[in-house]
Amino acid sequence: MSTLPDCQYCRKDQRLHDLMIEVAPLQVSTLYLFKEQTYRGRCVVASNSHVNELYELPEAELVKFMQDVTRAAKAMRLSLGAAKINYGAYSDKLPHLHFHLVPKYVDGPSWGAPFAMMPDPKVLLTAAEYDALGAKIRASLG
Amino acid sequence: MSTLPDCQYCRKDQRLHDLMIEVAPLQVSTLYLFKEQTYRGRCVVASNSHVNELYELPEAELVKFMQDVTRAAKAMRLSLGAAKINYGAYSDKLPHLHFHLVPKYVDGPSWGAPFAMMPDPKVLLTAAEYDALGAKIRASLG
Repeated sequence: MSTLPDCQYCRKDQRLHDLMIEVAPLQVSTLYLFKEQTYRGRCVVASNSHVNELYELPEAELVKFMQDVTRAAKAMRLSLGAAKINYGAYSDKLPHLHFHLVPKYVDGPSWGAPFAMMPDPKVLLTAAEYDALGAKIRASLG
Repeated sequence: MSTLPDCQYCRKDQRLHDLMIEVAPLQVSTLYLFKEQTYRGRCVVASNSHVNELYELPEAELVKFMQDVTRAAKAMRLSLGAAKINYGAYSDKLPHLHFHLVPKYVDGPSWGAPFAMMPDPKVLLTAAEYDALGAKIRASLG
């Protein structure tokens, strides 16, 4: 039996696979492509450590985690031609640190307002489209 | 004439004062109490540098900025008895880096969902109540 917490980010189980697709391991986190793609290229950067608040990361790990977040954001903005990246970390009920990184486009969905967590209706892509988008972002990580 | 960008965070003008009240200067940012208080103790940490994306901060300044953000978040969570702090940086149309730090309370407003940017109706406090809340958070900054 697993001794990991009952947490989708620790177990990387079906709950996680239903929501996102791994793009690349980063220094102390993992970059995922979010399956719901209303905001083209939307990703998640999830800490490899099971902590809840950002301030619970040890100082050196916080530095690396934010290097990971900014590296992913920069790769997304440049490779996707987004006008801005939005950053959101909420986790009221899922106590594992992760940032939603959401590309915004001028006059696109939610431009000038916070992104919707789970837009309705959902925009889903084909497996080939997810692969292409993930490869594009991964190639820009530098 | 000011040579500062036409930006409320740079000029600290009436646009800013309408929205928030300074609580404390931090290392490379400023901590403000947000006047709209649906989420009790809601704050903003605004960078002192006029950059748009987190990744535009020089490496050493990014470290200090995130130390500021986490220091504020910890002070807020502990002094307010919040169950979780939410972190949001959007800025599609206001190109100056700032994080909304939003305390969440179990079964309180938006528990388990992203916070609303500007709830309607607004919850506003008296000057004395803002002072007391700001003093409480400031005293917990350590």
